[in-house]
Amino acid sequence: MANVHISTDDLDAMEKRFRALFVNSLAGFKSANLVGTQDAEGNTNLAIVSSVVHLGADPALMAMIARPNTTRRDTLDNIRATGSYTFNHISPAMVKQAHQTSARYPKHVSEFDAVDLQWEHSEAVTAPYVVGSPLAIGMQLEEIQHLAINGTELVIGRIIEIRMQEDAIGTDGFVDIEALGSITVSSLDSYHSTRSLGRLSYAKPDREPEYL
Amino acid sequence: MANVHISTDDLDAMEKRFRALFVNSLAGFKSANLVGTQDAEGNTNLAIVSSVVHLGADPALMAMIARPNTTRRDTLDNIRATGSYTFNHISPAMVKQAHQTSARYPKHVSEFDAVDLQWEHSEAVTAPYVVGSPLAIGMQLEEIQHLAINGTELVIGRIIEIRMQEDAIGTDGFVDIEALGSITVSSLDSYHSTRSLGRLSYAKPDREPEYL
Repeated sequence: MANVHISTDDLDAMEKRFRALFVNSLAGFKSANLVGTQDAEGNTNLAIVSSVVHLGADPALMAMIARPNTTRRDTLDNIRATGSYTFNHISPAMVKQAHQTSARYPKHVSEFDAVDLQWEHSEAVTAPYVVGSPLAIGMQLEEIQHLAINGTELVIGRIIEIRMQEDAIGTDGFVDIEALGSITVSSLDSYHSTRSLGRLSYAKPDREPEYL
Repeated sequence: MANVHISTDDLDAMEKRFRALFVNSLAGFKSANLVGTQDAEGNTNLAIVSSVVHLGADPALMAMIARPNTTRRDTLDNIRATGSYTFNHISPAMVKQAHQTSARYPKHVSEFDAVDLQWEHSEAVTAPYVVGSPLAIGMQLEEIQHLAINGTELVIGRIIEIRMQEDAIGTDGFVDIEALGSITVSSLDSYHSTRSLGRLSYAKPDREPEYL
């Protein structure tokens, strides 16, 4: 099936932007979230990220990889300053606006205003939520680990609030994020909706898994 | 839109398996990869993971979060022992077999044999690749960082080989993993194919993004 084998020499020879698109394609489909923050004065900030990952269920933790020297620096500064941030899933209707938050706006410009998305606050979380997000999560910073290998930062936080439509939560705890309209991203700029192939039963060595 | 706000108290009150399905749903859609490894004696091992993330393009790095005390411990032991592993995207035809690798087989059983997937080796990589994977990546271990907050391990590796169909690589470096047939996963057991919503142009503050 594979008819090309790409080596490290091939990677090294790639033009910078080509390599960025190429290597960012390789991990597979990624979560698509808008990270909402605000600074100590209450100025809001919004940034699209594709690096949010589940870290643990108990305690409920999520991690995000932040790259310094990108527009996400405001986000990281705000998280350090306030300890508060939100993850907001992206719906198909919000894709263009979500993507546009990656433009390098001046520091005093809120991406909420620039891309015309509304924010709202909850009692539990200082950071702003995105109005209309299909599933939104309030986060409290736990720690930031510097990854010396390439200068990125691993931002680890605890989930302190979740906002969504209740009927998306199954009787077993599964949340149907496809039904909610959450999308996924590949590489740097490609957005995708999903189509369920089904859920499979808990795997045990002595039997085949079955579709639930 | 959101009609339920779930608090930390609500999370704490959830039954263990319910909470696992629930919290694993929250980050969004996740990459779906089979991790191929072998021990020092050449015994192969295969495990499905949804925690592979892009870490950087130059150098080309990917990270994976490994949970001790799960079936993935063999995987982690093998990676430590050999420094070599592969990430293999999963196609719709392979979903049941891929899911079944999460069953707790005895240590001497290769999941390749147990779920009836074939392996192959390349000259560049010690670890086994999954035959028929739409996109496969050979990895060299760089470092493992222990995340004390919940006892997980962040496994960071360098990409040393990529195997796929050449015509999936666009002229700008973008790889059409949807066309290759790579799938995505949500929560612990839900598999999804994707449908493209389009690619958007590089975002700049003074103009709207356009579909490419």
